[in-house]
Parts: sequence; C-alpha cells; structure tokens
Amino acid sequence: MDQAANWIAVDWGTTHLRAWAMGADGRVLAAAASDAGMATLTREGFEPALIALVAGWLVAGRVTPVLACGMVGSRQGWVEAPYRAVPCTPLEPGGFVAAPCADPRLAVRVIPGLKQLAPADVMRGEETQIAGFLSQDPAFDGVLCLPGTHNKWVRISAGEVVSFQTFMTGELFALLADHSVLRHSVGGEGWDEQAFGLALDDALSRPDRIAARLFTLRAEALLSGLAPEAARSRLSGSLIGVELAAARPYWLGQQVAVIGAAGIAGAYATALTRQGAAPQVVEGDAMTLAGLAAARGLMSEGMQ
Amino acid sequence: MDQAANWIAVDWGTTHLRAWAMGADGRVLAAAASDAGMATLTREGFEPALIALVAGWLVAGRVTPVLACGMVGSRQGWVEAPYRAVPCTPLEPGGFVAAPCADPRLAVRVIPGLKQLAPADVMRGEETQIAGFLSQDPAFDGVLCLPGTHNKWVRISAGEVVSFQTFMTGELFALLADHSVLRHSVGGEGWDEQAFGLALDDALSRPDRIAARLFTLRAEALLSGLAPEAARSRLSGSLIGVELAAARPYWLGQQVAVIGAAGIAGAYATALTRQGAAPQVVEGDAMTLAGLAAARGLMSEGMQ
Repeated sequence: MDQAANWIAVDWGTTHLRAWAMGADGRVLAAAASDAGMATLTREGFEPALIALVAGWLVAGRVTPVLACGMVGSRQGWVEAPYRAVPCTPLEPGGFVAAPCADPRLAVRVIPGLKQLAPADVMRGEETQIAGFLSQDPAFDGVLCLPGTHNKWVRISAGEVVSFQTFMTGELFALLADHSVLRHSVGGEGWDEQAFGLALDDALSRPDRIAARLFTLRAEALLSGLAPEAARSRLSGSLIGVELAAARPYWLGQQVAVIGAAGIAGAYATALTRQGAAPQVVEGDAMTLAGLAAARGLMSEGMQ
Repeated sequence: MDQAANWIAVDWGTTHLRAWAMGADGRVLAAAASDAGMATLTREGFEPALIALVAGWLVAGRVTPVLACGMVGSRQGWVEAPYRAVPCTPLEPGGFVAAPCADPRLAVRVIPGLKQLAPADVMRGEETQIAGFLSQDPAFDGVLCLPGTHNKWVRISAGEVVSFQTFMTGELFALLADHSVLRHSVGGEGWDEQAFGLALDDALSRPDRIAARLFTLRAEALLSGLAPEAARSRLSGSLIGVELAAARPYWLGQQVAVIGAAGIAGAYATALTRQGAAPQVVEGDAMTLAGLAAARGLMSEGMQ
C-alpha cells in the first residue's frame, strides 16, 4: 500500500531517476527508481516522468514539496539552476530554483550545482553528497574524493567547498572497456587485486605512458592470453594511477574521505592506501539522501 | 572500360577495402574501394567481397596474383597470417599465407603483421607501409612514426624493424570526440593552431593531468563559451602531447619520418617540430602501395 510523503527527495541524473518518500520525522517511507534520466527527456517530459514514479505518495488537495539534485538542473534539464561559484557552502536555499509544474500537488525545487571559474570546472549532484557528508561531520577539514563518471576532488574547509577538480577517469574507463579495441580483452566482471596494484604503481611513476600501456593490454591478450580479469584490473589501475599522480596535491598529507558506490570507492581507497594515505570510505547513495535531507532542513529553517 | 591486371594490390583493414589493378611495369592501371572492411565480413564473405570489387580486372582462364595486407590476415580475417617476431625485415615472402579461394582466376597471398614479445605489441598493415618507405630509402636509419587509430613508433636499422611501440592516441581521440561528454564541445572540423600548440606544450610538461585537462574543455565550453575548433585542437594537442612525452626516447635526437594521411601526419610533424625535431612527412597511402609493390617484387625474385 502506498503512503503519503511529507516531502519527496529526488536524485535525477543523466541516466537515472530515483525518489524517496520522506516522513515528517526524516525517515525514508518508500523508495522508487526508473531509467527516465535527463538524457531521455524533453523539457516537457520531466513532470510526467516524476509523477509516474511518485503518484502513489501524493495526496489530493495537498502540496507535497519535492527537492531534486543532479543534471535535472542543467541547461538541458527540467529548469536551469545556475551554478553557484566556489568558495561557498555546498547548499544555499536562496539558490534553489522552482521547476514549472502543472500538477497542483507538486512544488518542485531544484538544487544548483557549483562552478569554479579558474581553472574552469563544474559539478551537479556532488554538491548534495558533500552537504550530506558535512551534515554528519560538520567540522571536517580536508579533501573529498567522489569517484564516478566524472571524478571530483574537493577541498573542504570551514564548511565550504574551497576548490575542486574533475577527472574524466570514469568515463575513460567505460569508453575503453565497452567501445575500444580493448573491449575484446577486458570482458566480464572479474577482479585481480595484484594486477590492479602493479598497474597503479606503474601509472603513478610514469603517467605519460598511458596510451601505450593501454594497447599493451590488447597485445598481451593476443600474444600471451592475458586473462580478462587481469586486463580489466590493469585498465582500472592504469587510469586511476594517472589520476592519483595529478591529484597528488589533493591527497598527499591530507585527511581524505572517498564518497561513492562500494566497488569504485573501494578501488580508490585501496589505491590511496597503497600510497600511504588513510582514507575514510562513505557510501555515495546515503550521502545523496543525507544531502537532500539537509537541503530540506535549510528550507524549513528559512520558512520559520 | 575495365582492363586486365598483371596483379592486384589490396589494402584490407577493419573498416575499408581498397584495391589497385597493377600493370606489368609497376604502374597503377585502376583503383577501387568499398566499405567491406574485415569487421563487416564472416570468413566466407571475403572472397565475394573481393571479386565484387575487382571482377573487371580478371581474365577468364588466367590466374591473377593478389597481394593483401592489413587486418585481412588477423584471426578474424580471411586467413590468419601469423605475426612474425621483430627484429626482422618488414616483409618476408616465406611468411605470406595463401587465402582459400574457390574462383580459379584468383591466387591470394596475405602479408603477415609483426609482433614484439616484450613489451608485448603487434601491428598489421604498418609493416607494408614500412616496407614501402624502405623501398624508397633503403639506407634509412632512425624512427618512423605512423599515426592512425593505433599509432606506431618504429625503430629501423639496417633495413629491419628493431622494435616498436603502439599508442592508442588515435582511438582515444575518436572515442572522446564522438562518444564522450566532450562531443558537445568539440564539434565540427575547424582547427586552431595556437590552441593545439599550447595544449601540446602543457601536456608534454604535465602528462599526468590528462584526465583533468579533458574535463576542462567541457567546463570552459559551459562557463566561458570555448569555441569548438579550439576545444577540438586542444583535445588533439593534449593527447598527442602525452604520447610525445612517453615516446621521447623514440624521437629525441633521432632521424624521424612521419607516415600517414596529410591531416594527422601534419599535426604530428608540427608537434615534433615544436620540440626541436625535424621530421620528414610521407603520405601513408603511397607507402602502402609501394610496400605491396615491394612484396610483389620479393615474390617474383623468389620464383626466379
């Protein structure tokens, strides 16, 4: 049986839509997801896609607040929520943007992403995870690593995002594993921890060799039957190693927390630990939800 | 009007099939091409695809020799022509492999690629371009750079391929320009020589920053309207810069020739010149044809 939500939390990315029915006491009453990501929708398609997912949590004659983060706020999204410039706190209710809704039961606010002017950089969605992390550790002073399609390294101090840098490592891995000549060599889901570690060390010491190191996976598969799980782990280690070499100023001697899905966050934590860092690992989805709850709390404060 | 070929030269890659009708005097009588690349064919499909292209050059009751190079000799090709191990000359008629033919007018030989056991590496097709280059400059001692999907750097001495290394730079460029988030930012065919040069220098000095540098193109497009031709040129310069950093032992202080299509070969020549090298530039298709002619010459010698 469906139940009415006090408010609804939404994580709306390029390829996914996830929603949680939240109780007045902050508990999750229900969760739902669909593949109606931003990339699949025209501007008119957002409201129907959301209603299709959450209709059972709405009550006729009552307005249910909805808070959404992610690519839903991009220029190609439901409504553009202009980036806020760092340094700044991850969330600022004054920057939330109302999305146009025909259904009177919905009042949707979209959380804007953050931008950095020099070097140019942007994030959408991660600001909410950062807010979730800080809601649980407000005094944190250090660096957050948020692995994903576009990995973010973020300097945090005094509750603010000071600066950040994005690496395309996750997208490079997906392109190479699924669409390059290496797709023949890195199939499957297996993992070889030793191969990962050796490739990581090698890439950290000679990051320039990345394009040659990649083709070696193909050549070894052809000539000496390199196992797919070893090839896959070496691909991952090589790409993360190049990233860690460039991100050294972020993690060296800093307090580091890795926020992400278990598999990829674990790989980054392993890599950092191998370099002598002692990263904390935090589950990404939980931080998204905590961040949306923090945003809801900030809005409620503003209304008092 | 079609004319009979003395022999037929064939360049058969993953995505293309090209053939030349050759005269007894070595002149090109006719040329033809189709998109019946290896990737589009089953093993039984090769002979019909070839005949569809060259039928007009064949004479009933006479056997026309065909010499083919490229992926046609791979495990997924018409017939597997096992790699020869370097160091070796680029061509060795004893290694040419007969492809099974039902049509009595055809006698097809496939030229094998080269392999290197440590570090593992392979080439197919480039060995023929190398042979073409050496047929015109037999005393060449130095390094060949063959840009393409999988760029090769090849050490040549005393008419032999001594060693080589493959970089996936070309495939990375294509994946990023056509299939990554950067596709929104690098559209079109324009070129910005200055942006290319600056990105090249930057990548050569800090190759580890590649994954961050890539995302900067996206961020600058979003935040400051980076022009597509500048983004495209910077993408190319960044990737070539990382390659040149790793390939420095190949080109530094060496005699270098770049063999390839005009656009990409020109970009590599510009990049190398900027680093103080003085590369020669040679047209790739001409070297393929010269190499096939050299292979034909070696076979004829063997038959005398």
